[in-house]
Amino acid sequence: MRVWFIFPGENLMTQYTAIHLKARPGEAPLGPALFDVKRHGKPEVSDGTFLIKQTYMSLDPAMLGWMSPDRDSYVPPVELGEVMRSSGIGEVIESQHPDYAVGDVVMGMFGWTELALSNGQGVNKLDPTINPEMALSVFALPGLTATQGLYDIGQPKAGETLVVSGAAGSVGAIVGQLAKADGLTVIGVAGGAEKCQWLVDELGFDGAIDYKSDDLGAKLDELAPNGVDVYFENTGGPIQHEVFNRMNAHGRIAVCGMIADYTAREPSPGPNWMNIIKKRLLIQGFTMPDHLHKAPQLLEKLTPYVMNGQIKYRAHVLDGLESAMDGLNLFFTGENRGKLMVKL
Amino acid sequence: MRVWFIFPGENLMTQYTAIHLKARPGEAPLGPALFDVKRHGKPEVSDGTFLIKQTYMSLDPAMLGWMSPDRDSYVPPVELGEVMRSSGIGEVIESQHPDYAVGDVVMGMFGWTELALSNGQGVNKLDPTINPEMALSVFALPGLTATQGLYDIGQPKAGETLVVSGAAGSVGAIVGQLAKADGLTVIGVAGGAEKCQWLVDELGFDGAIDYKSDDLGAKLDELAPNGVDVYFENTGGPIQHEVFNRMNAHGRIAVCGMIADYTAREPSPGPNWMNIIKKRLLIQGFTMPDHLHKAPQLLEKLTPYVMNGQIKYRAHVLDGLESAMDGLNLFFTGENRGKLMVKL
Repeated sequence: MRVWFIFPGENLMTQYTAIHLKARPGEAPLGPALFDVKRHGKPEVSDGTFLIKQTYMSLDPAMLGWMSPDRDSYVPPVELGEVMRSSGIGEVIESQHPDYAVGDVVMGMFGWTELALSNGQGVNKLDPTINPEMALSVFALPGLTATQGLYDIGQPKAGETLVVSGAAGSVGAIVGQLAKADGLTVIGVAGGAEKCQWLVDELGFDGAIDYKSDDLGAKLDELAPNGVDVYFENTGGPIQHEVFNRMNAHGRIAVCGMIADYTAREPSPGPNWMNIIKKRLLIQGFTMPDHLHKAPQLLEKLTPYVMNGQIKYRAHVLDGLESAMDGLNLFFTGENRGKLMVKL
Repeated sequence: MRVWFIFPGENLMTQYTAIHLKARPGEAPLGPALFDVKRHGKPEVSDGTFLIKQTYMSLDPAMLGWMSPDRDSYVPPVELGEVMRSSGIGEVIESQHPDYAVGDVVMGMFGWTELALSNGQGVNKLDPTINPEMALSVFALPGLTATQGLYDIGQPKAGETLVVSGAAGSVGAIVGQLAKADGLTVIGVAGGAEKCQWLVDELGFDGAIDYKSDDLGAKLDELAPNGVDVYFENTGGPIQHEVFNRMNAHGRIAVCGMIADYTAREPSPGPNWMNIIKKRLLIQGFTMPDHLHKAPQLLEKLTPYVMNGQIKYRAHVLDGLESAMDGLNLFFTGENRGKLMVKL
């Protein structure tokens, strides 16, 4: 790990490291072979810009999508040669921008880089008293995504039953805790006994299903004897069919992620649509880029739950910029424990 | 065909015929073997009731669902021994009800019967100047269903592209004409050259796809080069996947029927859900029993299109009560031409 000693107004760096996308997933194993690690000279700060030294960098499942040249995708792919895209937290170390002062803590899409030059677009200031691990785990993409999908699509009502897949992931854990706080019966699907135990013992879920070892259908019947009203879909895979078959009339399904399918050669078939009619289901896909303009309202909705201590999180912190390259694999192996991020 | 000479206040019938469900689909071929044709004595009209002589009876694809003992279904099944369920039009021939007079034309769920006794529940009076074939083809379930699904879920906008499957069916034909009147590009999927020609030449659809002979994907690419914004699903089957793969971002899919799956032994797989996220699709199932309380508003929406001559229909009229039993098969053979009904 690289350590920087930064004093306000002072910057000793003359060079910095950034990681550029070199090849597409599938052309080489997910990891360093897909990237170029490059040294660059420190950018010039001109009028209206400021320089950010990044301190924390978020790793997210969406990244594999950004790396793929899929024209159908909802955000443009990262071009080959570009710095890999990511959100992060940093400190302003030089500024010729009237709204950003040296020492300000900021969040934005800085990419896999130690230094980032910005004109302020898409950059938000962060209350410096907020723990940056909490900021990335709750008040960034995971919390916004959970809040948008759960309330806008899921329409949870006290007494209903919610199932969330990828429940130990950064989004799923918040979805389940919000629903639990709202009085729903909450069942999480996760991989492995440790994650399942964490969901029930630490986060207060009513039940957890280990998709690696449980009989999914039997366990769902046991934990959701009255069927499922809201399904928050983060993974796809066999659990999708099992939950779908148990949806109650007027059930809502928020489709947020399909991690099980990102790496599949053949997309797995979805469930037959007859149930959509019989149960008058609502199924809606969403991605946060469509809703980022609502971030203030979403944070307003989310913050009281956090303040009331109803949202716990855990951060899985990797060490140093270059750890990001191998870190992406943790989403697919399921070895991540909490919100994945890199501390620079 | 039986002919009745009815004079107001006079009723010469002392007996009538009704058809009762005897066995479930699958236990015998769809047709007379599933039913009992019985003669009954004319019901007594007591205080608060009135007697209806049915003149037209609607046949609908939903009927196979009503005949099946599926506890998951959105309406209770017809019990064995009960008169088969259906909606129809009739004339009041005796009344001891203050709101219904002899000679009133009424619509309601009268079932497969010549005479029906009613207390007025679920019975609506019909403007006697409306052609009963038009009433059943447009202002009854087909028009209500088309209007509800198209506007509530489909949210059509001028300039968009809509695909409707089962387009020559009673609901699909209205969906397409409404969308066409609203300025959308409208493509219908139907079985056979005659139906396709009717959609384009008579109803003014922009294009039609014959699912029996066309290369579905190639034809869709040709007719909808800019993708599909609204899909109104009446059939399921292979066309579902082809349209789903061509949905545009923020597309809407109203799931109304799955006729291709009613008779399938194994439900066919649905499309993989990845596209639901990438395109942020909305998929919603609906059935009219949930929305019948909105019938007045739906008819208010629909009526101007009819008055402007923008909604054409054709009625496929079978002859006599007992023709209903074999008539159900026409939905599956695709031999029906327009809204299927029985004239008594």
